[in-house]
Amino acid sequence: MVIIMKPTASEQEITFVINYIKRNYDLRIDTITGEFQTIIGLIGEENQVDFELLELLPGVERAHRIQTPYKLVSRSYHSADHIIDVKGVRIGGSSRPIFIAGPCSIESKEQLLQIAAQIKSAGADILRGGAFKPRSSVHSFQGLGEKGLELLARAGEEHGMPTITEVRGETQVEMVAKYADILQIGARNMYNQDLIESVARQHKPILLKRHFGAGFDELLNFSERAIAEGNRDVILCERGLIPVGKGRQHTRYMLDLSIVPLTKIESYLPVIVDPSHATGRRDLVLSMSLAAIAAGAHGIMVEVHHQPEKALSDGPQMIRPSELQHLISTSLNIYQHITKET
Amino acid sequence: MVIIMKPTASEQEITFVINYIKRNYDLRIDTITGEFQTIIGLIGEENQVDFELLELLPGVERAHRIQTPYKLVSRSYHSADHIIDVKGVRIGGSSRPIFIAGPCSIESKEQLLQIAAQIKSAGADILRGGAFKPRSSVHSFQGLGEKGLELLARAGEEHGMPTITEVRGETQVEMVAKYADILQIGARNMYNQDLIESVARQHKPILLKRHFGAGFDELLNFSERAIAEGNRDVILCERGLIPVGKGRQHTRYMLDLSIVPLTKIESYLPVIVDPSHATGRRDLVLSMSLAAIAAGAHGIMVEVHHQPEKALSDGPQMIRPSELQHLISTSLNIYQHITKET
Amino acid sequence: MVIIMKPTASEQEITFVINYIKRNYDLRIDTITGEFQTIIGLIGEENQVDFELLELLPGVERAHRIQTPYKLVSRSYHSADHIIDVKGVRIGGSSRPIFIAGPCSIESKEQLLQIAAQIKSAGADILRGGAFKPRSSVHSFQGLGEKGLELLARAGEEHGMPTITEVRGETQVEMVAKYADILQIGARNMYNQDLIESVARQHKPILLKRHFGAGFDELLNFSERAIAEGNRDVILCERGLIPVGKGRQHTRYMLDLSIVPLTKIESYLPVIVDPSHATGRRDLVLSMSLAAIAAGAHGIMVEVHHQPEKALSDGPQMIRPSELQHLISTSLNIYQHITKET
Amino acid sequence: MVIIMKPTASEQEITFVINYIKRNYDLRIDTITGEFQTIIGLIGEENQVDFELLELLPGVERAHRIQTPYKLVSRSYHSADHIIDVKGVRIGGSSRPIFIAGPCSIESKEQLLQIAAQIKSAGADILRGGAFKPRSSVHSFQGLGEKGLELLARAGEEHGMPTITEVRGETQVEMVAKYADILQIGARNMYNQDLIESVARQHKPILLKRHFGAGFDELLNFSERAIAEGNRDVILCERGLIPVGKGRQHTRYMLDLSIVPLTKIESYLPVIVDPSHATGRRDLVLSMSLAAIAAGAHGIMVEVHHQPEKALSDGPQMIRPSELQHLISTSLNIYQHITKET
Repeated sequence: MVIIMKPTASEQEITFVINYIKRNYDLRIDTITGEFQTIIGLIGEENQVDFELLELLPGVERAHRIQTPYKLVSRSYHSADHIIDVKGVRIGGSSRPIFIAGPCSIESKEQLLQIAAQIKSAGADILRGGAFKPRSSVHSFQGLGEKGLELLARAGEEHGMPTITEVRGETQVEMVAKYADILQIGARNMYNQDLIESVARQHKPILLKRHFGAGFDELLNFSERAIAEGNRDVILCERGLIPVGKGRQHTRYMLDLSIVPLTKIESYLPVIVDPSHATGRRDLVLSMSLAAIAAGAHGIMVEVHHQPEKALSDGPQMIRPSELQHLISTSLNIYQHITKET
Repeated sequence: MVIIMKPTASEQEITFVINYIKRNYDLRIDTITGEFQTIIGLIGEENQVDFELLELLPGVERAHRIQTPYKLVSRSYHSADHIIDVKGVRIGGSSRPIFIAGPCSIESKEQLLQIAAQIKSAGADILRGGAFKPRSSVHSFQGLGEKGLELLARAGEEHGMPTITEVRGETQVEMVAKYADILQIGARNMYNQDLIESVARQHKPILLKRHFGAGFDELLNFSERAIAEGNRDVILCERGLIPVGKGRQHTRYMLDLSIVPLTKIESYLPVIVDPSHATGRRDLVLSMSLAAIAAGAHGIMVEVHHQPEKALSDGPQMIRPSELQHLISTSLNIYQHITKET
Repeated sequence: MVIIMKPTASEQEITFVINYIKRNYDLRIDTITGEFQTIIGLIGEENQVDFELLELLPGVERAHRIQTPYKLVSRSYHSADHIIDVKGVRIGGSSRPIFIAGPCSIESKEQLLQIAAQIKSAGADILRGGAFKPRSSVHSFQGLGEKGLELLARAGEEHGMPTITEVRGETQVEMVAKYADILQIGARNMYNQDLIESVARQHKPILLKRHFGAGFDELLNFSERAIAEGNRDVILCERGLIPVGKGRQHTRYMLDLSIVPLTKIESYLPVIVDPSHATGRRDLVLSMSLAAIAAGAHGIMVEVHHQPEKALSDGPQMIRPSELQHLISTSLNIYQHITKET
Repeated sequence: MVIIMKPTASEQEITFVINYIKRNYDLRIDTITGEFQTIIGLIGEENQVDFELLELLPGVERAHRIQTPYKLVSRSYHSADHIIDVKGVRIGGSSRPIFIAGPCSIESKEQLLQIAAQIKSAGADILRGGAFKPRSSVHSFQGLGEKGLELLARAGEEHGMPTITEVRGETQVEMVAKYADILQIGARNMYNQDLIESVARQHKPILLKRHFGAGFDELLNFSERAIAEGNRDVILCERGLIPVGKGRQHTRYMLDLSIVPLTKIESYLPVIVDPSHATGRRDLVLSMSLAAIAAGAHGIMVEVHHQPEKALSDGPQMIRPSELQHLISTSLNIYQHITKET
């Protein structure tokens, strides 16, 4: 539910309304202070609320229910695009698409510094690398842990790129937040509300990956968990759904690009695409990246390795730095056409 | 299985090999006469064949098994792109993408002629329109039948566009082939081998839509049915799979664009995309069309109506002719970038 | 839409109403003559009909719209269970479950007669066997065709079992109807409305398999096609959906047993289960058959071969006649418990 | 990888082998002390291990690799059924199926005590109830938290039933373990390896629900996480996959009963079925429960409420205590038949 204050509402009136709600209902509050108006969002079970009464409070222009299951993340609540600034890299709205690149796993100092240097000169904006790997099998490489985080922070600093890495569980939240600029919640954790809320409280930008079985509403619902904690800096990321075509699968997942224009219609949050996990194949990454940009994505997150054949994980889907350069320049050309034309 | 003849093989040697196979095995034959070499493909159960013996026949360079389930449609059998020419419109290979447009159903002479005029001036290449509609419910509009076909042929002629329409069942094959330039086999019929073979024998180009639950191998396997009948003019068309994201669905189907680069890797056939049925939403058609072109599609098939709100079927997904014009011009700009860059 | 006539309505009144509709609307008619009342169902687009007027016609008790997409197949139209009698074998309602068994493909006279004898003594009710096989690849065994149909009819006669076989395409309908007692429409053809209608006009019982991507509504919608042709003897058959669990698949399809109680709630048609195609594994057939019976299925259709390891198709999923005997006796025990208890 | 010790191997030899591995490799160890033999399982990346060398160690009969991705949970590692005893209730192997029942959410003392009394007299073995609810929306009822746990423990004690409740996040593990007898990991958390490991270290039985998009291998892989922590008391639970049938969905999820016989083939762990979440419909719970038992399930977990229409969550899928009684008695009858016959 949303309370829209009059453009002429005073500080006192706004405070009065907020206090009134806190006193009378078991609800939390989110406030958007716009250029002209303040909007107050209510968080929790709305059935308890008497709408008509609220509209009688001083300074209130209108109170209305938002029909979608997600509310704080909806364009009906907050109409302007939300742009996230990470150390000068702007993500969202009509900013040019950004490119997040780096290896699947951080394997060693040499590996990471070399890749960081090469993706920087290929045009990447943000450095990625996994330190705590979510793995299906207890018998696989599980990542370097905190040592990996240190290497990531250092490589980002040396090459002037903000960094992103995954937080796999609640016990690692504070540690990862000490090192990385963007905290990633992986696809397997998209439904993990406790983790999302815990990460949101670090007040750093969050990248929330869509689970491979999640509907679009669910992606928005769980991003709402972060906003309800007071952190609106959420980047959504499509990385493919369970493939349904019968028989042999030619890709790891199925990239659902419709999510890109849908997000722009339904929400104000930025949305990017990860073609590496979606396809699982190096030879499809370029085509699917260009398709994502043509569909309007705010960015691409792609796995890059200087020696994919020697990688400890995800080798078959990582591209080389030279391929990244071509991907970025063609993407930016397409972006300029889309923008000019639309 | 494939028999590659020597570049120096004579007509007689080729005929000898073909006759030898026909005499000794229960197999059909497909022949590709290239610029330098002739290739002979075998159709049927290959287990009966003695490979080593075949390599001893006069003029034979090599005989080898193709490992994929599809064979005649594979790039290992026929490496050059296959370009289909429909009354001067070239589809496939490095030809510029083509645009097939028109209403879901042919409703009346006035409707069709008006739409035909408008899409022609918007830049469309081929006119589409349904006369025999495959419908889930016996209680819905089923199409105008042969009268619709006549209207389609006439509208195509008046505006200088080849035409395409769906053949829904075996009993309509000859009738539809009398009127239309391209015979469409709908998604629901992709597994209908008898229909595919019957349509193929009309020796007109075929557009084969991927079933919404079909794996990529299956799409190729069933296109192989047409080629085995001697008709290689098959255009593949992606139109979306069953959506798997949990909960409320925001699109009718889920567009699987990876099929576009995959087809170009695995086969020589052209592949186009239908964003209208895939999304079921007018407001997503432009984005998904541009994405398809950026992914390398050989064309777009899109439903267009001058008054979508009055359409007898599929109203919510049809775009207006003015939107088509914008879609085509932006697509062609993206195409030029992809081509220049790649 | 449904017109319920008064219990006192005369023959003339009923005829009057039917003729009135035929004269005034472009609709077909289905009539159910019950013990007490006659019900008239309308087939086609209902929007044209003036409900209130119809209720004024002589002998009409009530006219109402059926809300589900399927109408003629709905329990709101026809409340009593429909029992189908095939040469004395009763299928549906509270009849005991029936067992359809036989090989995937008819391979030879010896093979079929031997299997028929063995399944008969194991307790099977109906003999199955494929003559026209729907195959993904043009390079696989395609079935014996009409010769297979002759063998099937003969084996059924010798062992006193009605027979069932698949009609793969429209051109085979009449030929298959000459030989078999039940005409099967395979999963791949569930959406083939022309085939369903053509088969229905043979006035023999139909077994309609659910497509592996079809929702329950669609299964009912397409069975409605047969009923609209005047043939209510339709047996629905669940045989598994596209598996969605990520990664390696342990079964060919995923059996959706909820369809069994759902059918009994929503419709009056019998519903059976095919565990052989659903699982693709001999070692799962027994468990899934018992589960189907416990869920209330009206029968089981199972592939049986005396030498599965030598079968020309589907070897890994066929069970042996001795296993069939155990399956049938345990099923009947469970059936008696369900019935007694429910 | 598995090391099988000779039946004659001494304590010292076994200790020697274990120490040898710990000294030389970065691996953890799991030991099964059987009646005749000791088996040593290795946990971690196996590529480092020299097999042939291990076979030369004293007391070693054989060392071999397990081919499946899961190892410790595999029947090739541990062939006998694992039976879990929870305060006298035996789950698994050939024990009779057990019935876990109770409300979706614990709402109040009165509600829970009343339901507990009624399900106990209906024949239930274990009491369930949610205190920390995983919810899609931040705007829904989130559960009573620790107060709910206290009520659950007390109700279990009063009525002599062990209890089960969900642990939603890592920060609640210890608190929940203080109160409940079985710790449930919900479907949304199946991929949450940190949570599984943290729960496993409480040394209480775990119920691991299959994620609605998880393949069977993944379910086993994540149960392996618990076993690798030294806790083998894992009950697997099937509760439905994302429904794939096109169009309107008649059930919330699609129950995949093939998992029941599959688990018994591949593993030694008990497997139960939750028909309430799988169907989301009270009118399907009985049929699907009986089907699960007929397929061989070790138990049923079902939501029961004395006033489903007043429940704060999941009302439409909860059955009444009287329906539970019928479900249990019919299930036990079927179970006896299956056992006798198989």
